[in-house]
Amino acid sequence: MEGKTTMKGLAMLGIGKIGWIEKKIPECGPLDALVRPLALAPCTSDTHTVWAGAIGDRHDMILGHEAVGQIVKVGGDKVIVPAITPDWGEEESQRGYPMHSGGMLGGWKFSNFKDGVFSEIFHVNEADANLALLPRDIKAEDAVMLSDMVTTGFHGAELANIKLGDTVCVIGIGPVGLMSVAGANHLGAGRIFAVGSRKHCCDIAMEYGATDIINYKNGDIVEQILKATDGKGVDKVVIAGGDVHTFAQAVKMIKPGSDIGNVNYLGEGDNIDIPRSEWGVGMGHKHIHGGLTPGGRVRMEKLASLISTGKLDTSKLITHRFEGLEKVEDALMLMKNKPADLIKPVVRIHYDDEDTLH
Amino acid sequence: MEGKTTMKGLAMLGIGKIGWIEKKIPECGPLDALVRPLALAPCTSDTHTVWAGAIGDRHDMILGHEAVGQIVKVGGDKVIVPAITPDWGEEESQRGYPMHSGGMLGGWKFSNFKDGVFSEIFHVNEADANLALLPRDIKAEDAVMLSDMVTTGFHGAELANIKLGDTVCVIGIGPVGLMSVAGANHLGAGRIFAVGSRKHCCDIAMEYGATDIINYKNGDIVEQILKATDGKGVDKVVIAGGDVHTFAQAVKMIKPGSDIGNVNYLGEGDNIDIPRSEWGVGMGHKHIHGGLTPGGRVRMEKLASLISTGKLDTSKLITHRFEGLEKVEDALMLMKNKPADLIKPVVRIHYDDEDTLH
Amino acid sequence: MEGKTTMKGLAMLGIGKIGWIEKKIPECGPLDALVRPLALAPCTSDTHTVWAGAIGDRHDMILGHEAVGQIVKVGGDKVIVPAITPDWGEEESQRGYPMHSGGMLGGWKFSNFKDGVFSEIFHVNEADANLALLPRDIKAEDAVMLSDMVTTGFHGAELANIKLGDTVCVIGIGPVGLMSVAGANHLGAGRIFAVGSRKHCCDIAMEYGATDIINYKNGDIVEQILKATDGKGVDKVVIAGGDVHTFAQAVKMIKPGSDIGNVNYLGEGDNIDIPRSEWGVGMGHKHIHGGLTPGGRVRMEKLASLISTGKLDTSKLITHRFEGLEKVEDALMLMKNKPADLIKPVVRIHYDDEDTLH
Amino acid sequence: MEGKTTMKGLAMLGIGKIGWIEKKIPECGPLDALVRPLALAPCTSDTHTVWAGAIGDRHDMILGHEAVGQIVKVGGDKVIVPAITPDWGEEESQRGYPMHSGGMLGGWKFSNFKDGVFSEIFHVNEADANLALLPRDIKAEDAVMLSDMVTTGFHGAELANIKLGDTVCVIGIGPVGLMSVAGANHLGAGRIFAVGSRKHCCDIAMEYGATDIINYKNGDIVEQILKATDGKGVDKVVIAGGDVHTFAQAVKMIKPGSDIGNVNYLGEGDNIDIPRSEWGVGMGHKHIHGGLTPGGRVRMEKLASLISTGKLDTSKLITHRFEGLEKVEDALMLMKNKPADLIKPVVRIHYDDEDTLH
Repeated sequence: MEGKTTMKGLAMLGIGKIGWIEKKIPECGPLDALVRPLALAPCTSDTHTVWAGAIGDRHDMILGHEAVGQIVKVGGDKVIVPAITPDWGEEESQRGYPMHSGGMLGGWKFSNFKDGVFSEIFHVNEADANLALLPRDIKAEDAVMLSDMVTTGFHGAELANIKLGDTVCVIGIGPVGLMSVAGANHLGAGRIFAVGSRKHCCDIAMEYGATDIINYKNGDIVEQILKATDGKGVDKVVIAGGDVHTFAQAVKMIKPGSDIGNVNYLGEGDNIDIPRSEWGVGMGHKHIHGGLTPGGRVRMEKLASLISTGKLDTSKLITHRFEGLEKVEDALMLMKNKPADLIKPVVRIHYDDEDTLH
Repeated sequence: MEGKTTMKGLAMLGIGKIGWIEKKIPECGPLDALVRPLALAPCTSDTHTVWAGAIGDRHDMILGHEAVGQIVKVGGDKVIVPAITPDWGEEESQRGYPMHSGGMLGGWKFSNFKDGVFSEIFHVNEADANLALLPRDIKAEDAVMLSDMVTTGFHGAELANIKLGDTVCVIGIGPVGLMSVAGANHLGAGRIFAVGSRKHCCDIAMEYGATDIINYKNGDIVEQILKATDGKGVDKVVIAGGDVHTFAQAVKMIKPGSDIGNVNYLGEGDNIDIPRSEWGVGMGHKHIHGGLTPGGRVRMEKLASLISTGKLDTSKLITHRFEGLEKVEDALMLMKNKPADLIKPVVRIHYDDEDTLH
Repeated sequence: MEGKTTMKGLAMLGIGKIGWIEKKIPECGPLDALVRPLALAPCTSDTHTVWAGAIGDRHDMILGHEAVGQIVKVGGDKVIVPAITPDWGEEESQRGYPMHSGGMLGGWKFSNFKDGVFSEIFHVNEADANLALLPRDIKAEDAVMLSDMVTTGFHGAELANIKLGDTVCVIGIGPVGLMSVAGANHLGAGRIFAVGSRKHCCDIAMEYGATDIINYKNGDIVEQILKATDGKGVDKVVIAGGDVHTFAQAVKMIKPGSDIGNVNYLGEGDNIDIPRSEWGVGMGHKHIHGGLTPGGRVRMEKLASLISTGKLDTSKLITHRFEGLEKVEDALMLMKNKPADLIKPVVRIHYDDEDTLH
Repeated sequence: MEGKTTMKGLAMLGIGKIGWIEKKIPECGPLDALVRPLALAPCTSDTHTVWAGAIGDRHDMILGHEAVGQIVKVGGDKVIVPAITPDWGEEESQRGYPMHSGGMLGGWKFSNFKDGVFSEIFHVNEADANLALLPRDIKAEDAVMLSDMVTTGFHGAELANIKLGDTVCVIGIGPVGLMSVAGANHLGAGRIFAVGSRKHCCDIAMEYGATDIINYKNGDIVEQILKATDGKGVDKVVIAGGDVHTFAQAVKMIKPGSDIGNVNYLGEGDNIDIPRSEWGVGMGHKHIHGGLTPGGRVRMEKLASLISTGKLDTSKLITHRFEGLEKVEDALMLMKNKPADLIKPVVRIHYDDEDTLH
């Protein structure tokens, strides 16, 4: 970084357009850090941001929020960078919702209201509180799955309030949904229905703890679930895919006295419809939760310990691997085009001084 | 009861029709009790049942689910009868949801799928577990408010997960909503907005702990709430009135990281609409809860202790008083016609042997 | 059972003495069932009851509380019998503590204040609420581990309030402690320290999810734990062995803002000592929990689903196998004498009409 | 402050000795504030610190942790200063325990490991996150009760997990215990036993929601409580006084399936004794909690709203009033000597530019 004042990054130029741009290296405040990427992954939400305009128009905003990196100012430490980097002193943080610090979804900063991580250098606020040391026994590629996929998927299972032996349905088994399956399993679920259709995802879902696959191509998923449970329905539902209409299915397949946890980004539609009758005319205790993942250092440390102890293998999510920062564009286009065998691509960036930087 | 084999009661004859009928006195199983009424109150849901056909058609089903009574078989004890009388061994009860024992809303038996309490005699299942002794220091009329109004209203505040010092909005201040105001206050709320318009209800709301009245006749309630809170919104919302569209208002007036608790019976509409954007595109942690009140003996005992200790005065809810079982018809028609000064009518029934029965 | 009026069972004759006795077959009330055993297991607490007089003197009380059986009145169903069979309508049950129904530990009836299951026939209260159907895909021997070992061990992990990625210490790895290790793992723990010394138990602990073994023969366990965690201590502790002094160790090895869950039966000592200073002079938020396992039908169904789905293998606990009711005496003596290779013995009883009984 | 570089404060000179000293005005980091006092109150723990050496020896450490003040750098805002000022990004804060940020009790900084508030100027870390604006409708004297007394007393009620209608016992009714009574009442308790003996405190306890006074001079408090509850005991206990032996009383007077919340600073004794038998031989679900109060801005705002809305009147706690910073010494000596009519003294400090400072 010596002498450099600018950096290049892969940016959203406007809705529907991406390109490499050159920007000033960010300022580094007293609590902050500047980081260079070691491993990056694009997220479906990056494609929503660019090609669906999901968060509105942005100009020359560098993309990306999944990274493992190395601190260049000040340090040399290799770190896991969470997608969500809260302001820890804010009102919402003090109330237990740091992901909404400063306003709803305010913990989500990268490629939302500041430049993202697909860049030579990126800025991290409250670095001590938000960056977790990368354990020596975890590869950067595997760790980058923690930034968003693992924490978001597991949060779906947390929101669904899973208890020992619960029968759970996970709707959607892309990378987040697969992590919701794993999360449900880690929280003690018994039978886990995974709703999906792509062969590779279904196979991986079974490896992560699913016990039954429900293919929506075989008929209405509510009917399939009710049939498979002798009409009782499931104890809990995690929504990790679908759209605003998915909640009605969840309400219909779940028992009274239950919880539905959503972590799917709902990009379209005016309303989520909750069916009045099946929701117990307002009194069925079918609790509906939806929330952005927690972030920050401790969350990353806790989830990383599941990899370190061999209890979670995130490498199964990685179907495509690239080398070099410039390949993040290919990785992003792959995410946009979604070939059938894709779960998640990863880009690894190497540096000559990776192991000697101070 | 000696020698009698039948009893009269005020029944729904069919949708839109009520009348007094004569029925066989119910069988009394080994865990059950037969009870005669000491105080009765009609509920808005009785009028929905009859005139809106809200639970479908019923023929010759005796109405009513709010009662204080006296056990005639076997005993003489004066008891508070909860509207919700669970089957305590059922699957749902073991999972913590006794109000749904045997199926969604299954704890609600009176005037739903068995005869109600507007009758000379009524039957109570699992009597030891469901009937609470009427404390000597509480009048039957005041205690009958516990059967449904207090427990339901307070459950709204419980569902909204109220914490010390929270700013709360209670939408709807009929008798249940007033008890949600009181419940919010008993659970530690600071500022409480009560949304209503009738003068008498507004006055009583202030006595039960409301600090601000929001009159929907003065404009959009969401705008009024946001203005009164400097744009921040409230911490929690209790819905105790309105309809399926009320949830959208609740979502719009509440902070991220919050809870909405509904105890309003939603009689009409296909769907409850949750606005996608204000619900944080699925990720705002605006938890949505709706549930039938808990019932049973211990719930009644706990709430009765608030009256015994002088911390809750339910007599403020009672605006109209009647004497004699036959007057329950007048009380019910009052509930249907809702004059402006009505909050809740009560019917008191006296017996010569009320204090000597064994 | 045709024509028989008496049954034989292995009983505590008095403190320190056991023997086979002949007793009248129990009465069967309207909600009850009579059951014959298919699989039985003795528990360490049986040995405490007899030889330590832990619950006081008992005369001619049949022993045992771990059973899988077959209903002989009325049915033929094969069922899992929980050690804890609550009275579901009681005050404590309504408050969420069915294991204490009717008074502290009141859900524990078998071989405590009524005859146990080491008998030709035994009685079960509230049979529909307390007996779970034995799934066809689970062996009776494996299922009998659910009665007490699995549910108690897992409850220790529940009491310790384990969250995703927590570092946990489980003190004691007999059969209950091994199930606490498994329970901690099923609830999302990352690193799990298992404190024990017997080789076979340590090996099995690693298979159930432990990541580190702490052998108390190698020095003070608090020092070992602190050293292994760079002085930070653990997030949660489960106590499944030791004595009244074990709590001081737990308090010393745990972080502030944490939970200690005990499921160890404390047979001796006047007091449990909580060290004032390490407990934060009363203000360290080191929450101390200790509780009897939940029981009943739903609990058994939930835990059984972990076996059915292949997520929990209880057969690893079974080190010694016997055939025939009379062998329950040998099994019990084994439990008393505790050879080094013992984890848990099981007795299987076969009947000619096992698969045809109605 | 213009031109001044030093300030005077009332300090602990060593164990058993206090005096006024002159110190350098503290440095003010980028997130910090310097504040001058408007209202101060001494705490019993200040007397423990000095005369009992409860936190060890300290030299020239300015005392005091209860203050309302005015920011002199940078601002002029009048603010409530919590006794507990966490570091919000720390590991413990991220886990939900900010009062232990940086280590057990680490949120307690004033007069513990940095200078306290009995000073012309004091320093506050993370000022935006830790200081709450003093509402215009609350007097500084009333607000200073929020710094420690209200928040600590109420936290006792929170730790005891009080639910609607619970029967509660509060042991100790000094200022913290009185606020535990009020807190229990604000959280929905029904019957509240207050254990104390001083007439004035007992009277005030009744005004804050106690329904029964238990005077330990009239006999064993456990026996009195059991007698008053027909042998059932209470649902919850808050410990706000006594010593290490008080826990045994709490365990003996409480039902199984219950919670004990301690906020009493335990200054002496090696161990807290939990009686094995009454604690259900380790399995009675009598949960034991003890914790330092939460602090920070949002906590203060929430509790202040209870005063603003007229739901909590802290002025009843104030029995002695002083004017001028130098009188804090008299106030402290009063706290040490505890005359019978003392609950809490307050010192008010006025400035000429109090309403014009920017």
